[in-house]
Amino acid sequence: MKVAELTIERLVQYRRLLETLKEEGYRVVSSQQIGDLLGIKASQVRKDLSYFGEIGKRGVGYHVGRLRDHIAEILASPKIWRIALAGVGNMGTALLSNPAFHTKKIRFEALFDADQRKIGRDISGIHCWNYTDIPSVMAYRGIEILILAVPAKAAQSCVDLAISSGVLRGVLALTQGPLVVPDEIFVVRVDIMAELEKLLFFLKQPISTGSVVP
Amino acid sequence: MKVAELTIERLVQYRRLLETLKEEGYRVVSSQQIGDLLGIKASQVRKDLSYFGEIGKRGVGYHVGRLRDHIAEILASPKIWRIALAGVGNMGTALLSNPAFHTKKIRFEALFDADQRKIGRDISGIHCWNYTDIPSVMAYRGIEILILAVPAKAAQSCVDLAISSGVLRGVLALTQGPLVVPDEIFVVRVDIMAELEKLLFFLKQPISTGSVVP
Repeated sequence: MKVAELTIERLVQYRRLLETLKEEGYRVVSSQQIGDLLGIKASQVRKDLSYFGEIGKRGVGYHVGRLRDHIAEILASPKIWRIALAGVGNMGTALLSNPAFHTKKIRFEALFDADQRKIGRDISGIHCWNYTDIPSVMAYRGIEILILAVPAKAAQSCVDLAISSGVLRGVLALTQGPLVVPDEIFVVRVDIMAELEKLLFFLKQPISTGSVVP
Repeated sequence: MKVAELTIERLVQYRRLLETLKEEGYRVVSSQQIGDLLGIKASQVRKDLSYFGEIGKRGVGYHVGRLRDHIAEILASPKIWRIALAGVGNMGTALLSNPAFHTKKIRFEALFDADQRKIGRDISGIHCWNYTDIPSVMAYRGIEILILAVPAKAAQSCVDLAISSGVLRGVLALTQGPLVVPDEIFVVRVDIMAELEKLLFFLKQPISTGSVVP
């Protein structure tokens, strides 16, 4: 089953919302309610969910627990992913301390930094290595995913080191600037400044019709 | 001119890349090169740029400086946007210290936190207020944009306070969980964990064709 990138993003949002709703005691939810809470059109919600075989009952909606389980299954990991984080500055530390990253799907196996005050220490219970050790540590521990939270200038060299480990499969890049990787490596980028520029662009439109950008 | 959300994201990427290329002394660049560096198809690059009247010369490409100026003009701000940051933890501090945020387009006017050790102090040269002061400070300073870097549980109450200022127009939310805002407020979300889940989803596909996800 081929799922478009944007659909996955929405599935993750649906699942998170459904978990919140379940915790708060809701048993059913309509596509309209899901849409309103996430800033997505109700018709898009229905389209997404029907694609996975979930049809809400007219006037009733979807069963919160069942829908959550179904989406969780689609998103389920076949294994625990081993992850390394390069860059233990403010951004890296923010990720390590974010409760959302304490999930059974992933395990932080190693941290990398260039700062002598961090190298050799355990930070949030994870050992921090010199970034020059990226190839050997990643290879030895079978770390397939690298999260990049280093300054823009160090991003490419860290990725090159990770590629040379021979086990890298995916990169989550929180850095600006172009990254060059072989075709078989997946890169997902998060560029917060670009998102802010997007917001500014929408706000400068002469006719501010107003809308929620999901 | 109505520009789709994804196009804007790409325009921001093009402009940043062109700036890098110009600094490095490049005078011309092809759509293929732009595409390769950003993980976008060359045909998409040509389509995007031709939409704004830029036609590359076959076998030559685009003039780096001229193209950058043109895109910068499209993205240009009509004014300096006044911005507040709620949440001066690791994530908030990472943004304040990110060189990309030191741009003429925006000016951080106020910080907000609930931590008594931060309230009343200047952090990175900007005054930090108690989050309960959000309505009065935003209204007094005409702050139209709020960046949310608070824990998920505090996000909605901070947004509600900002809405009550009467001047809020847009929110950049770095927090998880649903946010409810009136229709006329723009919300752009950055959910790093959701992006990581997207990466994991791509990696678990049985046929790992490999691809760069821009």
